[in-house]
Amino acid sequence: MGDEKRSQAVGECKIDVRVRYAECDAMGYLHHGRYWEYFEMVRTELLKQNGFRYRDLEAAGTFFVVYKCSCRYLRPIRYDDLVRVTAEVVRTTRTRVDHTYHMAVTGQRTTEAASTLACVGRDGKPTLMSDELWSCTTNGHPDE
Amino acid sequence: MGDEKRSQAVGECKIDVRVRYAECDAMGYLHHGRYWEYFEMVRTELLKQNGFRYRDLEAAGTFFVVYKCSCRYLRPIRYDDLVRVTAEVVRTTRTRVDHTYHMAVTGQRTTEAASTLACVGRDGKPTLMSDELWSCTTNGHPDE
Amino acid sequence: MGDEKRSQAVGECKIDVRVRYAECDAMGYLHHGRYWEYFEMVRTELLKQNGFRYRDLEAAGTFFVVYKCSCRYLRPIRYDDLVRVTAEVVRTTRTRVDHTYHMAVTGQRTTEAASTLACVGRDGKPTLMSDELWSCTTNGHPDE
Amino acid sequence: MGDEKRSQAVGECKIDVRVRYAECDAMGYLHHGRYWEYFEMVRTELLKQNGFRYRDLEAAGTFFVVYKCSCRYLRPIRYDDLVRVTAEVVRTTRTRVDHTYHMAVTGQRTTEAASTLACVGRDGKPTLMSDELWSCTTNGHPDE
Repeated sequence: MGDEKRSQAVGECKIDVRVRYAECDAMGYLHHGRYWEYFEMVRTELLKQNGFRYRDLEAAGTFFVVYKCSCRYLRPIRYDDLVRVTAEVVRTTRTRVDHTYHMAVTGQRTTEAASTLACVGRDGKPTLMSDELWSCTTNGHPDE
Repeated sequence: MGDEKRSQAVGECKIDVRVRYAECDAMGYLHHGRYWEYFEMVRTELLKQNGFRYRDLEAAGTFFVVYKCSCRYLRPIRYDDLVRVTAEVVRTTRTRVDHTYHMAVTGQRTTEAASTLACVGRDGKPTLMSDELWSCTTNGHPDE
Repeated sequence: MGDEKRSQAVGECKIDVRVRYAECDAMGYLHHGRYWEYFEMVRTELLKQNGFRYRDLEAAGTFFVVYKCSCRYLRPIRYDDLVRVTAEVVRTTRTRVDHTYHMAVTGQRTTEAASTLACVGRDGKPTLMSDELWSCTTNGHPDE
Repeated sequence: MGDEKRSQAVGECKIDVRVRYAECDAMGYLHHGRYWEYFEMVRTELLKQNGFRYRDLEAAGTFFVVYKCSCRYLRPIRYDDLVRVTAEVVRTTRTRVDHTYHMAVTGQRTTEAASTLACVGRDGKPTLMSDELWSCTTNGHPDE
C-alpha cells in the first residue's frame, strides 16, 4: 500500500447514541450487557471511516469475533441519555485488533472498556487480515 | 410419508421460561418486544417434538421467516416469573404456517398472540416445504 | 389548553435508525422482535416534538404500556441498513393511543405495524391522561 | 446469624440454558453481549439457593449493580446449544461481591468470565449488605 492511503488511516471514532427504553433495566439504567452493542456500532463506523463496510467484509468471508472484553461502569447511564461513544485502535497484529472504548454523558465519563477481536474465516478459524484491512486497523501506523 | 408417522405429528407444545432481569424494562415488566423470543423458543421445541431441529433445517437451506404477527398483552409479566408458553399450529400450506400462542403465569392468562411464518430458501425467496416438514407442521392433519 | 398550542400538536414523526449487528439473526436480517424497539424510539421522539419527555412522564407517575400490537414484515432489513421509521397517531381516547408505523429502506417500504398503548399509573392501573398530554397525542385534533 | 444457617451458605451454582435463535448473530453464534444475561440468570439462582429472591431485595431497596466485568470467549456457542453456566462467589466485602463464571457445551469449556457487583440503595449510592445477605454471598465463609 502507498504512503498516501496509509497516512489517511483513522484510528479513532466517535458516535452519539440515544439510549432506548428497551435497553434499560428495572433500575432505569442502561443494562450492562447492552454496552457491547454500542461498542460494536462504533467499530462499524470506524471501519467505514477507513473505507470498509463490515457487511461487505463478511460477505467476502472475513469476520471479526470478540475474543475477550472488559468493562468498568463508573456511572450509570439512563433511558433517553445521549451517549458519546469513543473507540480507539490501540494495537494490532495480522490476526487481532485491540480497541479501547469510553463513554460519556454530557461530558462526564461513565464507562471504560477494552476488547480484543480475532480475525477469522467463514469456518471460524483464525485468518490473516488483508494488507489493506490491516493497515486501516493499525491506528495509522501499520509498520509498527 | 406413511400414515404411522403422520399420526404422530404434534401440533401443540408447552414450555416454561423463567423471566430474566435483562428482559424487563423500567416498570419491572417483561418488555413487549421480548415476547417474540419466547414464541420462537416454543416453535423450536415444537419442531423438535416432530423430529426436526431448526438448526439443521437452516443448515440444509430451509428457513422460516416471520411474515406477520400480532399480540395482546392482557396482564404484565415480571422479572423472575415462571411463564408457561403454549404454541399451536392452526393452519398450514406448503409455504406458510400459522401459529397461535398464549402465555400464563401461575395459571392466569397474560398474553395471546399469533404469527404467520413463510418458508424461504437461503436467498430469501418463498420455497415449498418438504413433505415430511409439511406433515409435521399441519397439526396432525396434513391432508386437510 | 389554548388553540395556539393545540394547533401545534404534531401527530407524525420520522427517525432514521442504523441497524446494529447485534440486532440481526443468523440470516443476517433484523430480528422481528427488535422492530418494537424502533417503534418505541420513534414514539419517544414524537412525544418530544410535542414538548414531553417520556422519562419525565414516568418520573411523574404516568406510564404508557403496550396493550396490543401487530406487524407485517414485507421485506427483510439487514445489518447496517439505514431505516426510516415513521409513526403516526391515528386515534386517541383519554386512556389509550393508537399508532400506526411504517419502515422503509432506500425508499422501499419494508414494514407496516400498529399498536395500542394504555395509559397507566405506577400501580399499573388505567389512568386518564392530562389535558396537555391528551392534546398532544390526538394528532392535532384533541376535540374529535 | 446462627452457625447452622451460615454453614448452609452456597457459594456455587450451575444452570443449563438453551441458546435462543434471537440471541445469535449473523455468524450463528451467541452474541457476546448476551452472555451477561446468562451470568445474571445464574446469579439469580445462586441467591435463591441461599434463600433470597433478588426481586424481593429490590422491592426492599437493595440493588446489585455491575461495577466491572470481563470475559474470554474460548469457543463459540451456537443456536440451540445447551449451555452449562456456572457461577462462584470468590470474594466479598460488605459492599461488593466478586463472581467468576464459566460456561461449557457438552463438557467443553467455552467461556471464562468475572464480575464485581456493588450493593447500592434505591438512590444508586453504595450501601452495606445486611448480615444475612452478606453471609450468603461469602461463599460459605462469612467471617473470613
